[in-house]
Amino acid sequence: MKVAGIDIGGANTDMAIIEIEDGELKNIKVDFRYLPMWIRKNELKETLKELLGDEIDEVDGVGVTMTAELVDAYKDKEEGVRDVIGRVEEIFEVPVAYVSLSGMMDSEEALAKPMEVAAANWVATSQLAAAISSDCIMVDVGSTTTDIIPIKDGAECAKGRSDLERLSTGELVYTGVLRSNLATIVDRVPLNGKWYRVSSELFAISADIHLVLGNIDYKDYTCNTPDGAGKTMRDSMRRIARLLCADLKLLSQRDITEIAAYIHHQQTLKIAEAIKEVSERENLDEIVTTGLGMHVLAKKAAEHLGMKYKSMDTFLTPTECIVAPAIGTAIMMGDHLTGGI
Amino acid sequence: MKVAGIDIGGANTDMAIIEIEDGELKNIKVDFRYLPMWIRKNELKETLKELLGDEIDEVDGVGVTMTAELVDAYKDKEEGVRDVIGRVEEIFEVPVAYVSLSGMMDSEEALAKPMEVAAANWVATSQLAAAISSDCIMVDVGSTTTDIIPIKDGAECAKGRSDLERLSTGELVYTGVLRSNLATIVDRVPLNGKWYRVSSELFAISADIHLVLGNIDYKDYTCNTPDGAGKTMRDSMRRIARLLCADLKLLSQRDITEIAAYIHHQQTLKIAEAIKEVSERENLDEIVTTGLGMHVLAKKAAEHLGMKYKSMDTFLTPTECIVAPAIGTAIMMGDHLTGGI
Repeated sequence: MKVAGIDIGGANTDMAIIEIEDGELKNIKVDFRYLPMWIRKNELKETLKELLGDEIDEVDGVGVTMTAELVDAYKDKEEGVRDVIGRVEEIFEVPVAYVSLSGMMDSEEALAKPMEVAAANWVATSQLAAAISSDCIMVDVGSTTTDIIPIKDGAECAKGRSDLERLSTGELVYTGVLRSNLATIVDRVPLNGKWYRVSSELFAISADIHLVLGNIDYKDYTCNTPDGAGKTMRDSMRRIARLLCADLKLLSQRDITEIAAYIHHQQTLKIAEAIKEVSERENLDEIVTTGLGMHVLAKKAAEHLGMKYKSMDTFLTPTECIVAPAIGTAIMMGDHLTGGI
Repeated sequence: MKVAGIDIGGANTDMAIIEIEDGELKNIKVDFRYLPMWIRKNELKETLKELLGDEIDEVDGVGVTMTAELVDAYKDKEEGVRDVIGRVEEIFEVPVAYVSLSGMMDSEEALAKPMEVAAANWVATSQLAAAISSDCIMVDVGSTTTDIIPIKDGAECAKGRSDLERLSTGELVYTGVLRSNLATIVDRVPLNGKWYRVSSELFAISADIHLVLGNIDYKDYTCNTPDGAGKTMRDSMRRIARLLCADLKLLSQRDITEIAAYIHHQQTLKIAEAIKEVSERENLDEIVTTGLGMHVLAKKAAEHLGMKYKSMDTFLTPTECIVAPAIGTAIMMGDHLTGGI
């Protein structure tokens, strides 16, 4: 059996195609595209067709999870969920179902209960984390957000059942390895023994500091740059300088590296603080890290807290980890097709 | 004598035309346009011609101050200053001079020392504040930034001589009454007895909270909305809800007003903290408030600190206060033409 899993995020659309034989996962193929849904939602159908390619006729079913309904092209989440479902349903001739907070739902049920499928992608990812450790906290650091999901007895048991609730339970931290405006991470930065307040414009993003620090390379910088300029080290440094209303004539490369390292540490602390909250409440002391920022941020946060951790990339390839929600969705869809969920 | 003063900001271009007779200020006329220089710098010439109208042939001189050189359409500030000067010099046939950290400069000198005229608009405004109180702290809350400038013996004595330096001396706080991303003001907000982390996207801006709180009305909301939607109370509420990954089905109007009031208070504290820093260092205990946010934020900050304050709008009309740097620039240009500066 061949099953596709699709994760339609606000900024990226990810795909996994898995092959299952006799209940065993035999093969995984993954791919993804940068698709900013707030300006290009009309391209979703084409993007999905492109991602699936020839295999669109070979899959036995398609599982879908989404977070794109939050983008400000939609009046509210319900409108967003319905729009995404509408676009997806036009494409496939095989069964399609949607990840919800309580298993897979077909389009009819999903359209009737849109809030159950809104932003449920972490449910799919937690399936994979639970396979690695049946009692743990999954820390999935994506391009934009971080999911911190408690897992007990092999099943996710997040206290928050919506993004809004998870923002209050420590289970969602809106910071990520690429797209976070640096001005949302720090109010001020130290430099040569003095503190500087920062500009609140969207001048530089987390991808810029992680590029400068060597945490990612330019191929990982898959989102747009805030100023529309390039993705070289020098471009990123210029953007970081602008955070202090400065430029590369006013600040040296060494200054900028010092600033970037400080912001990286503060971003780590933001995530660590939320992990601690979940860990203490749920009495869980092991972390499974995943997502694009699993080493850059999740691992650092675990180390800061002195907690033991396993990386999902010990079990999956790095690229597979980045699209873990899509793989989890495909697995849930496979179970659904065979009557499991 | 008739003199024009122009303040070319990143987001707004303001103009004042003053008439001086026998050294006395007889008449002030002001106007402004929203001109986002990071995307529409090519329209600067047309905008200036439109602002001056028929009086372009009547003025005896034009003073110019700028902050637009910081926008990310420019590689660095020097390039920005030179570009703005180049555009301005093509328009006028009368003398033009530029506000610098050490008086007015003609274009030749300004092109030779671009960093002296970069972001010197607060020098112009401080001329007006000094006329109100010869020993005070001017707090000028604009759409995007707040200048906190110490004045002694009738002259500004800011310790920072560039935006970068002023970010470290408490003399520049990058927060304002319209354009500030709410995610740069708060990391979390209280609601119904719980704390919620916030999204780090550009979902809602300070204009949204101040509109919802009745601090400004829709006519004051002169910048673009982050989502391209309208400027009604409901539109602003929807944007604020999105800051918590929520919408108007999940949060009530009362919830959103509670959130807005909290963010307003935090924004006030940011400004108050910097005023305190300058006040203690410079031994100054009186505040002169000005700018679009003079009542909404500067006055609140003064009250929070228990400091006495005078509003510039006791001496000028509210609109004149909003374009105070342009008026100050015109006055400096008048002095320059008569050999004063």
